[in-house]
Amino acid sequence: MKKTIILEIEKINPERAVLIEGLPGLGLVGKIASEYLIKQLKARKVAELYSPHFAHFVIVDDEGSLRLLRLEFYYWKGEETNRDFILLTGDCQAQTVEGQYEVAGAIFNYAREKNVDLIITLGGYQREVVGEPRIFASATNRRLLEDVMKFGVKSSPPGSPIIGVAGILVGLSGFNEVDALCLLAETRGYRPDPKASKSLLNLLSKMFKFNIDLSDLEGEIARYEKMEERIRRIERKRKATERERRAEETERIFYIG
Amino acid sequence: MKKTIILEIEKINPERAVLIEGLPGLGLVGKIASEYLIKQLKARKVAELYSPHFAHFVIVDDEGSLRLLRLEFYYWKGEETNRDFILLTGDCQAQTVEGQYEVAGAIFNYAREKNVDLIITLGGYQREVVGEPRIFASATNRRLLEDVMKFGVKSSPPGSPIIGVAGILVGLSGFNEVDALCLLAETRGYRPDPKASKSLLNLLSKMFKFNIDLSDLEGEIARYEKMEERIRRIERKRKATERERRAEETERIFYIG
Amino acid sequence: MKKTIILEIEKINPERAVLIEGLPGLGLVGKIASEYLIKQLKARKVAELYSPHFAHFVIVDDEGSLRLLRLEFYYWKGEETNRDFILLTGDCQAQTVEGQYEVAGAIFNYAREKNVDLIITLGGYQREVVGEPRIFASATNRRLLEDVMKFGVKSSPPGSPIIGVAGILVGLSGFNEVDALCLLAETRGYRPDPKASKSLLNLLSKMFKFNIDLSDLEGEIARYEKMEERIRRIERKRKATERERRAEETERIFYIG
Amino acid sequence: MKKTIILEIEKINPERAVLIEGLPGLGLVGKIASEYLIKQLKARKVAELYSPHFAHFVIVDDEGSLRLLRLEFYYWKGEETNRDFILLTGDCQAQTVEGQYEVAGAIFNYAREKNVDLIITLGGYQREVVGEPRIFASATNRRLLEDVMKFGVKSSPPGSPIIGVAGILVGLSGFNEVDALCLLAETRGYRPDPKASKSLLNLLSKMFKFNIDLSDLEGEIARYEKMEERIRRIERKRKATERERRAEETERIFYIG
Repeated sequence: MKKTIILEIEKINPERAVLIEGLPGLGLVGKIASEYLIKQLKARKVAELYSPHFAHFVIVDDEGSLRLLRLEFYYWKGEETNRDFILLTGDCQAQTVEGQYEVAGAIFNYAREKNVDLIITLGGYQREVVGEPRIFASATNRRLLEDVMKFGVKSSPPGSPIIGVAGILVGLSGFNEVDALCLLAETRGYRPDPKASKSLLNLLSKMFKFNIDLSDLEGEIARYEKMEERIRRIERKRKATERERRAEETERIFYIG
Repeated sequence: MKKTIILEIEKINPERAVLIEGLPGLGLVGKIASEYLIKQLKARKVAELYSPHFAHFVIVDDEGSLRLLRLEFYYWKGEETNRDFILLTGDCQAQTVEGQYEVAGAIFNYAREKNVDLIITLGGYQREVVGEPRIFASATNRRLLEDVMKFGVKSSPPGSPIIGVAGILVGLSGFNEVDALCLLAETRGYRPDPKASKSLLNLLSKMFKFNIDLSDLEGEIARYEKMEERIRRIERKRKATERERRAEETERIFYIG
Repeated sequence: MKKTIILEIEKINPERAVLIEGLPGLGLVGKIASEYLIKQLKARKVAELYSPHFAHFVIVDDEGSLRLLRLEFYYWKGEETNRDFILLTGDCQAQTVEGQYEVAGAIFNYAREKNVDLIITLGGYQREVVGEPRIFASATNRRLLEDVMKFGVKSSPPGSPIIGVAGILVGLSGFNEVDALCLLAETRGYRPDPKASKSLLNLLSKMFKFNIDLSDLEGEIARYEKMEERIRRIERKRKATERERRAEETERIFYIG
Repeated sequence: MKKTIILEIEKINPERAVLIEGLPGLGLVGKIASEYLIKQLKARKVAELYSPHFAHFVIVDDEGSLRLLRLEFYYWKGEETNRDFILLTGDCQAQTVEGQYEVAGAIFNYAREKNVDLIITLGGYQREVVGEPRIFASATNRRLLEDVMKFGVKSSPPGSPIIGVAGILVGLSGFNEVDALCLLAETRGYRPDPKASKSLLNLLSKMFKFNIDLSDLEGEIARYEKMEERIRRIERKRKATERERRAEETERIFYIG
């Protein structure tokens, strides 16, 4: 694998489609939202994206199966919404600037091939949160931004840098004159934050008249709280491991022949 | 976008043109100068440069619009000056050595296509400043350097490393036997320094008989001082965010399936 | 050398072959195991792999000979085992994510060309060890994993990141629908750990009915303990050297012409 | 400039040529030696090597001229020595592993085109030095090493990592079955060390019967001591500058439009 590739599991042919991206980032806000949406809509997986820019490790799943890090595209034909949807989630983001551009470019090209004419990226916006997390938006053009501000969304403060694929994908869209919208929910960002994801899902439901049940997110919140405990334990161990691996690396070069 | 590209907005056909580059760097000296010049000359934008080497974020402008980081070429047909001018400004510089070479190469090629036979790069030279900031020059050849020394400019001390596009662009020019000049104004460099930019603009006005009004730079100085206050606030927040994002990254790899 | 290349010393044509990889990593567990196996089976070297992603140094061997860092493929025609074996060992791993993917890809392609239908990667799993080091496995599919669990091997805990070639090679195999297995032996990882390697070798012997003598590993354990002493000395010196080299680098740029 | 290139100033056609490389490294031992040799032999410059892997800055020379970082090949037709010589010196080394391989590859290819059948790399070997700095050698083959050991040179201790072009160039030579020799002189490495260079020059003179006067190196030693003083001053300033530039970088991203 020399560059980023997309593996189609099923050929789809959407009309007037929307791509909604939610990859890991601040507070996991985007990823939690996109995965919840996928589950609720019962969207089906239609493609996977692999990239040599992802990370120098792989992960074991619950079954003891080991696989490369990847992104996943899900498809939902929105009969009532008058729109088809491609939902993107995944394990990680690229490790370098050049990798970020390559991966975002591959996502964009896939979206265009599938007649996507609106790209929405989801993420977190770090700050102290009082009450329901608010949403900040930016877009490739003013009209699009004003459309979404009707739902109570605020315009992102000028000068905010938007990090990672949520930003670059919208940037590439603008560059190619495709409509795109970046929606960031307030989050303290210190830990997985399904509450912020809920704000995003609420907004998306209003925008596209999704008929989804958000009550399960409460369960998610509990689940993430438990998971966090476990993660902290694993993470402590992993860091020790990494430290050792590095120590090893400086040593191993002497074990020749 | 796999490599650096230049998007022409308008085809121009200058004669005996000069390219003046002022990108972000020490004290923002070059960028402030080039942007002030663009405004004063009412130069019009003719091209944009995009690169996957720029950064892993994008920026929101005053309108809530989000776009990729980019450089911008402006054109001014200097009727009285007997010279045409291409002015370059932008958001950032490339993140890696290889990126710096690629971007500088793209700028250089564009310049050559447009009959540029003199390239001038602007920047800051860090040191304590007493009185009016002085200017230090280096060039692709001695004759060019002596020409500019007539205006009271000093020769850059031997051994000075010139960092970033201001240096590499001149280096590439010399390599290709095109005349180029690097002009650095003294600056403490701790903050945006329009005073140093003013020294550069004074020099350029003398060199090319620009008929521009520098009084507005005083306004700029005030404006930058206010902006600085705001930046320090945003920056503190951004750093916290970045710290969190990194913490997140080490955690998020566990949220699979 | 612009990319990773494999140099064949001898063309081989195995049938139903197994590739066993053991490169430097945590506790050198994989490397010690693969090299011991090579020696015991009297496997012969059939190919070498070189890569510009390996490291910015080379190494002197016992004879004062200096050579590039490399990996080595050994071949053993397993008459009694009903299987042919390609054994992979080497000096190092790639330095970047992209390099890891490129090198793992080259190994995978070589394996496929040689009719390998099972890839096994060896490594260490960091934790406190009580008694005989246990082995944790993950695989490209459940069936394969269950096969090896019959030998008392445990399934790797979900969420474990597997770092480096041991992980990516299995990931790439799964991606290409080739069976692969990652076997990690418990190790504290602080130093070369032939005891953990012994656990791996025991398992491999059972799996493939290797007729090998593991008693020499006791000698290895002693040998590595002595070597460690020496390494610590060399390493202290090397670190000092590296520190100086870096100091030098910042200085040397001034010694021009 | 997308990759490393060599610009020939003069086409040469040596016979049975030797390439001697001395680039900046530990104690500047190799660079001082190669430059002294070039001066003494009155070798003439025949080619320059440029690379996008060198560094993100350029340098101003004594004349206020600014040029790209580069390496330089000099040629000396050794009538009495029965051998022709290509001498390589330069400003720097590549910044990444991949860059090191690319640059070393370009040097190697140039050498081969010019009928070089022996490559010698020069450098420092860090340790406490008692009396005259001794020389440690490693080579692509034992015979070559023994040849040079006749001159009192010691074999490099096994396991020594040889960093940078001095190592990789010899490694690439061995890989391509061309004879190559790496000669490292003892140096504390803390500062430019012409004394260590003198040991190398003494050895080369014996090996190739160079008729050169080493007395000037005493002058060099004095010159470097003075230069050091100046460098420490410049370096302190440069570090401050670099610190500021970094601070700037985090700030400048907010100065959009």
